[in-house]
Amino acid sequence: MTTTDMTTAGRDGAVRNGVDTATLFATLDAVKQAPEAARFQFRAHNEWVSGTHNRTTIADYFGVGEERTHEHTFVFDADHPAVLVGQDHAPTPVEFVLHALAACLTAGLANIAASRRVKLTEVRSTVTGDIDLNGILGLNPDVRNGYERVSVRFTVKGDAPAEKLREIVAQSQARSAVYDIITNRVPVTIEVETA
Amino acid sequence: MTTTDMTTAGRDGAVRNGVDTATLFATLDAVKQAPEAARFQFRAHNEWVSGTHNRTTIADYFGVGEERTHEHTFVFDADHPAVLVGQDHAPTPVEFVLHALAACLTAGLANIAASRRVKLTEVRSTVTGDIDLNGILGLNPDVRNGYERVSVRFTVKGDAPAEKLREIVAQSQARSAVYDIITNRVPVTIEVETA
Repeated sequence: MTTTDMTTAGRDGAVRNGVDTATLFATLDAVKQAPEAARFQFRAHNEWVSGTHNRTTIADYFGVGEERTHEHTFVFDADHPAVLVGQDHAPTPVEFVLHALAACLTAGLANIAASRRVKLTEVRSTVTGDIDLNGILGLNPDVRNGYERVSVRFTVKGDAPAEKLREIVAQSQARSAVYDIITNRVPVTIEVETA
Repeated sequence: MTTTDMTTAGRDGAVRNGVDTATLFATLDAVKQAPEAARFQFRAHNEWVSGTHNRTTIADYFGVGEERTHEHTFVFDADHPAVLVGQDHAPTPVEFVLHALAACLTAGLANIAASRRVKLTEVRSTVTGDIDLNGILGLNPDVRNGYERVSVRFTVKGDAPAEKLREIVAQSQARSAVYDIITNRVPVTIEVETA
């Protein structure tokens, strides 16, 4: 998600790293004037296909005071590999969590670098998640269901010293929505309609 | 992820809900004999494209004692919509988290129903996540970066009474990897290479 740095005077209006900093700061100023514009609701609509295979549609969301739709309707499957009793039609749900984390941190990095007048030339990352399936298989009550740990390894290159590039990654971490979701608790409610 | 129910005798070997229950229980028995087979590492490789747009490749993982690859290499983009200073090439990172949750709960539901000899005819869900972007925009220190709350609404139909269908959803929640990741803390480490 958008991650910015209010403490730095990067307001030269340039497009840097593909980020239109004039629009970025205009958005910040608009939300400062009308904080309720920042209330968003994102949504995913899922339909079971067969076995561990199911399909999610992402299109509508609420934000800046009104119902909105993405420019395209996005459809993603999920499945298990054969070794986990699936057909491997798509990645597992837990792999999509790793994608979300990498994507969130990387988007933030580009925005923050732009606001700090740093031109990036390369950003790559590998995210790994270690999981002991004795948890979800119900075979060991001492093993949690989810990841035991997640590791992110970034390679970042740009026209700034290593220390500054590291500070930009640290700021992205400090303002990442998905990092917060994974490292802290989010309340989840589940309702069931059966007819 | 795979979610099963060891307390019920669903061991008739039937294929139900697209789940080969013979394979499901054989997998459980194999892991009971060799618990270390259940140690998996999932991975996502991300590359920045421009601005908030980036791309993840999912292919390799470790499990059942060896390096493995999915049958296909899966590629997913992420981006922000224009209202969040992006180009809307793909969903936002936080929307992929909702996809992951819906997919994980639904895969578990199908497995558990199969093991309890319940034939499902329809499973649909809508997952919503409420987020106040004053957090990631750095405009209000009292607002968290991630979702304030996530809600899942399931519609489940099958050849069992409503109460039994609800119990199956509850068991899927109790054994869901992504539900655990979102509702509890996962430690995340971030390393940065700059040259």
